[in-house]
Amino acid sequence: MLTEKHIEYLREQKAQALQKGASGLLTEALVSALKAMIDQGEFARTQRLPPSRVLAASIQVSRGTVERCYSALESEGYVHREVGRGSFISPRERPLLGKRSVLQPTLDNAFFSNTALSRRSTNGAQIAFDSVPYQRPFTPGVPETRNFPMHIWLKLYQQVAKEEGALAIGGSRVKGSEALCGVISDYLRAERGVRASAEQVIIVSSTQQALSLCAQVLADADDTVYMENPGYPGAIRAFRAAQLNVQPISVDDSGIDVESISRSAVRAKAIYLTPSNQYPTGSILSLQRRLALIAQAKQRGMWIIEDDYDSEFHYSGVATTSLQGLDGYQRTIYLGTFSKTLLPALGVAYMVVPEPLVEPMVAMRRAMDGAVSPLTQLTLARFMQQGHFREYVRIMRKMYATRVERFIQLLKQYVGDKATIIYPECGLQVLCLVENKAIERFVIAQSIASGIALQGLSDLCCGDDALSGWVMGFAAFDPIEAERYVKQFADILHQYDEYDGK
Amino acid sequence: MLTEKHIEYLREQKAQALQKGASGLLTEALVSALKAMIDQGEFARTQRLPPSRVLAASIQVSRGTVERCYSALESEGYVHREVGRGSFISPRERPLLGKRSVLQPTLDNAFFSNTALSRRSTNGAQIAFDSVPYQRPFTPGVPETRNFPMHIWLKLYQQVAKEEGALAIGGSRVKGSEALCGVISDYLRAERGVRASAEQVIIVSSTQQALSLCAQVLADADDTVYMENPGYPGAIRAFRAAQLNVQPISVDDSGIDVESISRSAVRAKAIYLTPSNQYPTGSILSLQRRLALIAQAKQRGMWIIEDDYDSEFHYSGVATTSLQGLDGYQRTIYLGTFSKTLLPALGVAYMVVPEPLVEPMVAMRRAMDGAVSPLTQLTLARFMQQGHFREYVRIMRKMYATRVERFIQLLKQYVGDKATIIYPECGLQVLCLVENKAIERFVIAQSIASGIALQGLSDLCCGDDALSGWVMGFAAFDPIEAERYVKQFADILHQYDEYDGK
Repeated sequence: MLTEKHIEYLREQKAQALQKGASGLLTEALVSALKAMIDQGEFARTQRLPPSRVLAASIQVSRGTVERCYSALESEGYVHREVGRGSFISPRERPLLGKRSVLQPTLDNAFFSNTALSRRSTNGAQIAFDSVPYQRPFTPGVPETRNFPMHIWLKLYQQVAKEEGALAIGGSRVKGSEALCGVISDYLRAERGVRASAEQVIIVSSTQQALSLCAQVLADADDTVYMENPGYPGAIRAFRAAQLNVQPISVDDSGIDVESISRSAVRAKAIYLTPSNQYPTGSILSLQRRLALIAQAKQRGMWIIEDDYDSEFHYSGVATTSLQGLDGYQRTIYLGTFSKTLLPALGVAYMVVPEPLVEPMVAMRRAMDGAVSPLTQLTLARFMQQGHFREYVRIMRKMYATRVERFIQLLKQYVGDKATIIYPECGLQVLCLVENKAIERFVIAQSIASGIALQGLSDLCCGDDALSGWVMGFAAFDPIEAERYVKQFADILHQYDEYDGK
Repeated sequence: MLTEKHIEYLREQKAQALQKGASGLLTEALVSALKAMIDQGEFARTQRLPPSRVLAASIQVSRGTVERCYSALESEGYVHREVGRGSFISPRERPLLGKRSVLQPTLDNAFFSNTALSRRSTNGAQIAFDSVPYQRPFTPGVPETRNFPMHIWLKLYQQVAKEEGALAIGGSRVKGSEALCGVISDYLRAERGVRASAEQVIIVSSTQQALSLCAQVLADADDTVYMENPGYPGAIRAFRAAQLNVQPISVDDSGIDVESISRSAVRAKAIYLTPSNQYPTGSILSLQRRLALIAQAKQRGMWIIEDDYDSEFHYSGVATTSLQGLDGYQRTIYLGTFSKTLLPALGVAYMVVPEPLVEPMVAMRRAMDGAVSPLTQLTLARFMQQGHFREYVRIMRKMYATRVERFIQLLKQYVGDKATIIYPECGLQVLCLVENKAIERFVIAQSIASGIALQGLSDLCCGDDALSGWVMGFAAFDPIEAERYVKQFADILHQYDEYDGK
């Protein structure tokens, strides 16, 4: 189908040709108009042209004229005709970028330079943490996906599509499928000591969406949220885009410094933290501090946002019970995701919220997005119900435990003289500390060219006593890959001495 | 695994039992503590209990004590033991709702009544349009999904999972997969006259997410957006949740009244409209008004948000070209979705934005959510590339054209004396107008009990001259279903006379 605009353009060309008089000009004008449009990428690569009868009627010329045009285009290779199917534009090179189309609109530069985007947009864009490309060696938080039992997933996906009918392929309730909310609450109760009924579980597409929802529902523009320093950049991004002030609270070996909250004059609406595996330092919030934090939250009328990321992957014994499970007053919002335990590609995460927040959170989710694909939700529910999730997590926990040992060994071997390596108790990344920010920035700048991606620690810190070094994802590499990439990294790190004139 | 909290509770019970003296009390106390926890749903239904050795060490009792506890639980049917596998909690009824757990936190009522949620949340919750349950007869916008070529989708999904490797199952760029952005821009250029390169396409999970992004990026709290009256409630929801003022502009047979915008003293940041198929009236914005609107937008420095929903399903000849294609200055943001053309369950929609908006929109998307599942995106890209999308839309367009005829025939037959039926030129719903709001509300209230769901027209209107009647989705019903539901609806409508004392 040609669009109205195309037809209009052809009519114009026809009128111009007719004004000039000679009737042979008409076919020529139409052919060159069609060629120009094809050249300039007006049509899809293999688009079918309208039947000559239809186009003839549209631009009010004879059918013979259109037939002559199509033949001309065919002889020049612009079009190929298939018997009984019609005339198709021949696949060809894409139009050159920047080549101006006959129909191309001009960018209204005056408008774009005068029309300010929202302050929220400016806030959101200020966060420059996204320089780390996904799926390059060392990108933090990337799991191994090559062992995922895809055959089981595909089988269950098929089953769901065939057996669940409209429940699977129609729309879904925004809160999430009942089946999935049920298995998640069962799982969290058993594994994480979370106290929650299925009614309190809300399915979201990502932890990022959960953070954005928390920001929107719990606080207004200019309100403050406490967060760990150093801390998770995704959270800062969500809070800043919602125009919240982010008040950093320092972190030590026992997690966030709860004492300093009690001294803080700022009245925060909420505190965001990663108590069971502090991001990026990996420290665990002590029981004493957990209880003190809950008391603080009670006293200050503050929400607790607990991001329990990577808690499935603990290497030194038993996982710490969730903060939510200790909070006797239901003021904690608990976040978890399947992006790392299963696949980033699933697009399923969840939040567990106190009962009074279920309705406002779901209402806000409905204002901000639709439901997560019920096909995916129901497949995941079966995957969990049949025990595949626990089994896969168990296997991966073992594998990551082996990989982290090896990774640390490699780092010690190749850069042990230059950096301090922190053994994580949990999670998919290792901290590598260096003396100063100059080294950190040098290595980051150099690493891009060599195909590896490093997340600078100083980017995750506020204030003067920022840590220097890198958060390094190790989970996605087998020992051979790990050695290759660590060597590349070591080469760059050793170049610094030369650069620094040592 | 038992959680810390569970262990703590068991230790307490042990301590209390030991205080009481008699050693037989210890086993009894532990058994009753475990039973209470099982009864109250502390564990997943078929959770494995820790090996007796492990539990014994945790609560510092002898292994024999734990063995005696497990045996006691087994004899009472709480637990079953499998040789070589361990002790499992036997599946049983869920705990009674409201039954207070030994460990259940109390809701901190003082906190919840004193802690106000955000104004944004209150704004978002004010919108009461969600009374219409999904997938009940007549819910607007629900497509027929029973003919979807699921076997093709499943085949392609499998292919993608197997062939695309990390591209399909790893993370994806937030903007959307290159392949899908490419086929969408090809498609829109050919079918809708949209002028856009693949670079301008952003994949989102729903039109609702696109609307929310527009609200966040283009305007700040207290800014104004124009919108059609009556208009699409999802848009109002997104704008209100972003704290925007929504200024209604009336609609007539030729679409939104552009003249009245030129007289408006309010300076709006953007206008949201459905030019090719006004929601819910179905009117089409005339070419003259389209050009006038573009001129207005230019003069006032205003963004145009064009929601081109359902444009694939046009019944009277050719679809109108998009407004975006006419906008010679690239100030239009174009929205489309696969929820109705394919399946609500896919969770894929898209926006086409002017080049200068690509980066800010993607940055805001990254702050608010992750990427849409690349598995789904790549499957959809293949589905479109192989022509299945066009083919399916073509088949469904024909089917809906037949269904709308039949639906209108039925409405005329059964309620023609009571209501005015509007034949749509496009889309998946029919307007049914009645004299006054009292009838509308009566029928909505009664319809819930009879299993059908009606969207009241007056809910979609602002101001005094609101329309009364219903927006009725017809697309999901074959002729037999349609007749059954229309009869149900007619019965209720005819009850009104009785109720009204006529």
